[in-house]
Amino acid sequence: MAGMKAHTEYLTFNTPERYEMVHITPDVEQIVRRSGIVDGLCFVSPMHITAAIYVNDNEDGLIEDISAWLEKLAPSQPNYRHHQTGEDNADAHLKALLLHHETTLPITKGRLDLGTWQRIFYVEFDGQRRKRVIVKLLGVTEE
Amino acid sequence: MAGMKAHTEYLTFNTPERYEMVHITPDVEQIVRRSGIVDGLCFVSPMHITAAIYVNDNEDGLIEDISAWLEKLAPSQPNYRHHQTGEDNADAHLKALLLHHETTLPITKGRLDLGTWQRIFYVEFDGQRRKRVIVKLLGVTEE
Amino acid sequence: MAGMKAHTEYLTFNTPERYEMVHITPDVEQIVRRSGIVDGLCFVSPMHITAAIYVNDNEDGLIEDISAWLEKLAPSQPNYRHHQTGEDNADAHLKALLLHHETTLPITKGRLDLGTWQRIFYVEFDGQRRKRVIVKLLGVTEE
Repeated sequence: MAGMKAHTEYLTFNTPERYEMVHITPDVEQIVRRSGIVDGLCFVSPMHITAAIYVNDNEDGLIEDISAWLEKLAPSQPNYRHHQTGEDNADAHLKALLLHHETTLPITKGRLDLGTWQRIFYVEFDGQRRKRVIVKLLGVTEE
Repeated sequence: MAGMKAHTEYLTFNTPERYEMVHITPDVEQIVRRSGIVDGLCFVSPMHITAAIYVNDNEDGLIEDISAWLEKLAPSQPNYRHHQTGEDNADAHLKALLLHHETTLPITKGRLDLGTWQRIFYVEFDGQRRKRVIVKLLGVTEE
Repeated sequence: MAGMKAHTEYLTFNTPERYEMVHITPDVEQIVRRSGIVDGLCFVSPMHITAAIYVNDNEDGLIEDISAWLEKLAPSQPNYRHHQTGEDNADAHLKALLLHHETTLPITKGRLDLGTWQRIFYVEFDGQRRKRVIVKLLGVTEE
């Protein structure tokens, strides 16, 4: 009978820009391969409240559209109550909520079981400092 | 001791309309029963970047409200940068991001453990062609 | 070899206010400890369609910013089609969709593996009545 296991790794990012989208599908795919898990689920989440994960197309124009759209729906502006604490990043929290702070991905036959155009992005809304992303897999190992 | 297993199936949709919400709770429930898993998690996700899954009420008026609201927050319009690639569906990507591209559901006693009014919807934002949804379960089988 | 198990509990809320954000990290942490699961995933979801779960900062100003932002993007107003059924809470459904109805959290070494500022909130958009949240864990127990 096949065994079950959990496997955990942490990715680290320190983006040059405050707002940045980083394509991380190859990083996650490598973790899946190292895990030895052939069938199961792969959880990916920033351990921060001003960053998010999303899955969509790796097309430069669309990435710019997504950035402009996030800015429209959750604008950077001075008058948030959170800024009374001395912070200036309330919009980063709202943008992170909009994209959701975590995602789960399927693993089949030892690979991420994504569609042709599905790519994983780490989205930084308050960068220029060290941040961590947890990747935790749970599933069946080879018999 | 109870065994653990993963179970995977793929649903296929080809909606007559470009935008469409399809109620899929019965399809997912049937997969749960076929899996033999009695306690665990059920992951549901389109394998495409212009579709989403959401869980809410199966009430026609509300479904129209959700459609109108998505159109307001992520409007179909010509001036997206993504359209420079020849595509015309950038709004479909944004709408899919807004609803999140995947959901996880609980399984208890061999059934989806949903509240009275929770129903699962596949949401198509660029249809009229064949699309796939992955349903992957992970959990405990009968002893 | 380590065993695998699922563990399920239900939390109950009856908020004094119609809209309310309730900090539930300690409740979820206690369930993690009771489960005996040391490595795995923790799923948290309201069993209702007018409530959500989110993970972000437990800072009063930001909580007010999030409330104001949700009201701006999904306003309470009379003219929703859903209200033709006699309901008056269509905005609560839209707000719940915006924040996503569920979240998954990682468990490592028998604890929620969250970042320094990550806190779990139950968000009620149509309260003043009894509502349930399911917490289901799946993972590896101590060897």
